[in-house]
Amino acid sequence: MKPIKVGLLGLGTVGTGVVRIVEGHQEDLQSQVGSPIVIEKVLVQNKSKSRGIHVNPDKLTEDPWDIVNDPEIDVIVEVMGGIENTRTYILEALARGKHIVTANKDLMAVHGPEILTKAHEHGCDVLYEASVAGGIPIIRTLIEGFSSDRITKIMGIVNGTTNFILTKMSKEGAAYDVVLKEAQELGYAEADPTSDVEGLDAARKMTILASLGFRSDVSLEDVDVKGISKVSREDIAYAKRLGYEMKLLGIAERQDDYISVAVQPTMVKNSHPIASVNGVFNAVYVYGEAVGETMFYGAGAGELPTATSVVADLVAVVKNLRLGVNGKQLTLTYKEKKLKTDEQIASKYFLLLHVDDRAGVLARITQAFAEFEVSLESVVQQPNATLPEAEIIIITHDASKAAVNKVLAAFESMDVVKSVKSVYRVEG
Amino acid sequence: MKPIKVGLLGLGTVGTGVVRIVEGHQEDLQSQVGSPIVIEKVLVQNKSKSRGIHVNPDKLTEDPWDIVNDPEIDVIVEVMGGIENTRTYILEALARGKHIVTANKDLMAVHGPEILTKAHEHGCDVLYEASVAGGIPIIRTLIEGFSSDRITKIMGIVNGTTNFILTKMSKEGAAYDVVLKEAQELGYAEADPTSDVEGLDAARKMTILASLGFRSDVSLEDVDVKGISKVSREDIAYAKRLGYEMKLLGIAERQDDYISVAVQPTMVKNSHPIASVNGVFNAVYVYGEAVGETMFYGAGAGELPTATSVVADLVAVVKNLRLGVNGKQLTLTYKEKKLKTDEQIASKYFLLLHVDDRAGVLARITQAFAEFEVSLESVVQQPNATLPEAEIIIITHDASKAAVNKVLAAFESMDVVKSVKSVYRVEG
Repeated sequence: MKPIKVGLLGLGTVGTGVVRIVEGHQEDLQSQVGSPIVIEKVLVQNKSKSRGIHVNPDKLTEDPWDIVNDPEIDVIVEVMGGIENTRTYILEALARGKHIVTANKDLMAVHGPEILTKAHEHGCDVLYEASVAGGIPIIRTLIEGFSSDRITKIMGIVNGTTNFILTKMSKEGAAYDVVLKEAQELGYAEADPTSDVEGLDAARKMTILASLGFRSDVSLEDVDVKGISKVSREDIAYAKRLGYEMKLLGIAERQDDYISVAVQPTMVKNSHPIASVNGVFNAVYVYGEAVGETMFYGAGAGELPTATSVVADLVAVVKNLRLGVNGKQLTLTYKEKKLKTDEQIASKYFLLLHVDDRAGVLARITQAFAEFEVSLESVVQQPNATLPEAEIIIITHDASKAAVNKVLAAFESMDVVKSVKSVYRVEG
Repeated sequence: MKPIKVGLLGLGTVGTGVVRIVEGHQEDLQSQVGSPIVIEKVLVQNKSKSRGIHVNPDKLTEDPWDIVNDPEIDVIVEVMGGIENTRTYILEALARGKHIVTANKDLMAVHGPEILTKAHEHGCDVLYEASVAGGIPIIRTLIEGFSSDRITKIMGIVNGTTNFILTKMSKEGAAYDVVLKEAQELGYAEADPTSDVEGLDAARKMTILASLGFRSDVSLEDVDVKGISKVSREDIAYAKRLGYEMKLLGIAERQDDYISVAVQPTMVKNSHPIASVNGVFNAVYVYGEAVGETMFYGAGAGELPTATSVVADLVAVVKNLRLGVNGKQLTLTYKEKKLKTDEQIASKYFLLLHVDDRAGVLARITQAFAEFEVSLESVVQQPNATLPEAEIIIITHDASKAAVNKVLAAFESMDVVKSVKSVYRVEG
C-alpha cells in the first residue's frame, strides 16, 4: 500500500521520540495499519545543530510552510509547542486537508474548539492524546471507554514537576525553595517554573479533561487556579500527621449538569489511590455514576512515553485514512456549559489559624463556623512552639466554598485571629 | 435517524445493568452516536420470573433463536455466559450479519480466534471489553492506546474473588477457609469457587490480555495456572514481614518475541503500585518498552461497572454502523506465537523450607542453589516455633524456572530437607 507521509513540526524531546518509535516499530505499525508510515519532512529551528538522533538532512527544514504547503504530506505531527504561530500552521494545514496529531496542551486548551470545528469542516482528524498525562491514554478512555457512563468527577495529578516537588517535600521534610532548585538542576523544572508551580500547566490539562469528561466546552477561564509556591513544610507536616498527603490536584466535578474545575494544592487521605502517586508520575482518577472509581497511572512526560501517545494517535489517523472515515469522530462536546456558583462547590477544608492564646477564643472561632453553617469534623488547639499564640487546626465536613469564604471574611475582623496560615481543600 | 435495534442475550446482573444504562443514558448516547439505541428483545430463562427491573414483557423471549434469527436486530449483546451453546448462537448471528458485544471471557478465551475470524468473513464487529476487568477499559487501551508501543509485560489482578480473599487474609491474619466462607456469604465467591480460587477465571482473562498485548493468539493451554487454595496464613505473614503482599497475579511476559503466561500467587513488593490494589478491585499493570510503567485500576465486576464496558462497546459498534466500517478493525494478532521454555522464564523466588536443625545443613542447602547457578538475595535461618526443625527462608535473585525446579528436585533426595513448605514467585 501507498506509504502515509508525515510532516513533523519539532524535533525536541518528544519529536525525537516520535522518530525513534516510527522507525523502531515500523514493522509492527505496518502490520497493524497495512501501510508504511514515513516521516517525510521535519521542521527544526536550526538545520546545522547536532542531535542525538540521525535524521536524513534532506528531510530537515527551517520553514514550517515547507510542510504545511506540501501536497504530499497526509498527516502533520505537531510537537513544537507554542500557541499563536502554531495555531496558524495547524489551521492552514487543516484547510489543506491534512490531519493533525498534536501533543500541545496549551494550544488545545486555548484554541481547541476552534481547531476541532475547522477540522470538522474539512473532514480532518485532530487527535491530541499526548497533550494530557503523556503516556496515559486518558483521552481515548474518556471519549471511548466511558462513552456510556456519566462521569461526575475527574481528579488529576497532571503536572510531574509539582508532584516531584511535593513528593520530595513530603518524604524529606524539605522546604519548597530547596526542592524547586533541585528539580531545576535535575531538569524536572524549567528555569522559569511559573507555569508549572503556579498551576497553569495543570489548569490547561484539566480544561481538556473536563471538556471531554463532561461533554461541554470548558475554557481556561473557567478554572480556578492556585499553585504550590505557598505550600510550606509545616503544611505538609500537618497533613502527614493527620493522615494526608499534599498533592496539586486538578479537580473537575459535575452535579446535576453544573460543573466546576479547579487546580489547587489539596490534602488527600492516605487511603485514596491518588495519594500514593509519587515523583514525576501522573495519574487521573475518574468517578463515573456507573463505573464507580477508576484510576489511570503512568509517566506524564518524557521522550518515549509522550511519543507513544503521539504515535498511537498517528495509527488511529492512518486507520481512518484506510477506511475513509477521517473527520467523523463522535461528537465530543454537546452539552451546554453551566458553571457551579461558589454556593454549589462543596468539599471538606483544612484550616490552620494562629490565634490569641486566651480563654474563650476557641468558642468564638467555632461560633463563626456555626454562623455560616459550616460543620466541623475535627478541631485541635495547641500552643505554638515559637510564638505566644495558639494554633487551631480545623477540618470541616463538606462545606460550600461560599460559606468557607464567609467564615474567612469573618476572621478578618476578629482581633483574636492573628492570621489564617493555611486553607486547603481536603479529599478522600 | 433509524433506531439501532439490540437483542440482549441474558438478563442477569450485567444484563440488568445494560438495560439500566441504555435506558438511563439514552439522551447522552443519542447525542454521541446520532441514533436511538433500542433494546428490542431480551432472552431470559423464565419469562414469568419477577425481576428487579421493569422490561416490557412483550420483549422477553425464552428462545435464543427468536433473537438470532430476527432480521430487524442489528447488534446482539451477549451477557448470558456459557461456552458451547453461546458459541453456536454467536457464530450463527455473525453468519446473519449481526454485530456482537460480549462480556464472556470464557467464550473469548476458548473460541476467540474462531469467532473473530467468522466476524471478519461477514464484515461484523465483535467487541469484548467487558470480558476482562469489568469497568476498566483495558482492552481498548491495549489495542489502541498502546498500538505504537511494544508491550513486554502485563500483570493483572483480574479476579476480584481471590483478591478479596487474599486482602482479608493479609489484613486480618485470617485463614483461607474462614475467609472463603465469608466471601461466599457476601456473594463474592460462588458455592463452587473452584474456577476463581484455582486460577482458571484469571487464566482465561490473561489469555485475552496476552493475545492483545503481544499480538499473537495465546490459548488457555499456554497458561501455567496455580490457584490460591494452598496459600496459608503463615505464607502471608512471612510475605508481610519481608515487605511483600500476596496477590494472585496473572503475569504475561515477552522477551525477544518469546512469551510466557502464568497465573500464580505472587509475593509483590509493597512499593509496587499493584501491591496496594485491595478487596474486589481489579488492576492491570502494563509495561511497554516506550511508555514504561502504567497501571489501570477499577471495579472488576458488578452490574453497572461491567455494563459500562458493554455499552461502550455498543456505542463503538453503532458508530461503525453509521460510518459503514464494521468488521474493519485493525489486525489484532499477527505475530507467530513462540512460547518461552522453562529455561527462558526468569523471576525471583521465595522459598520456605523445613530442615533438620543441625550443623552444616545451611551449607548443603545453599550448595544446591549454587550447583544450578541460582544466586540468592537473602537467606534467613531460624528455629521453628513448634517443631524440632529449622526454617530456612530464601529469596533468590532472578533465576530460571528450570533451574529452580532442579534445585527443588535436588531437595527431594536430601534427607536433611524435611519439606519444602512454600515456593512463590516474587515481583517488584
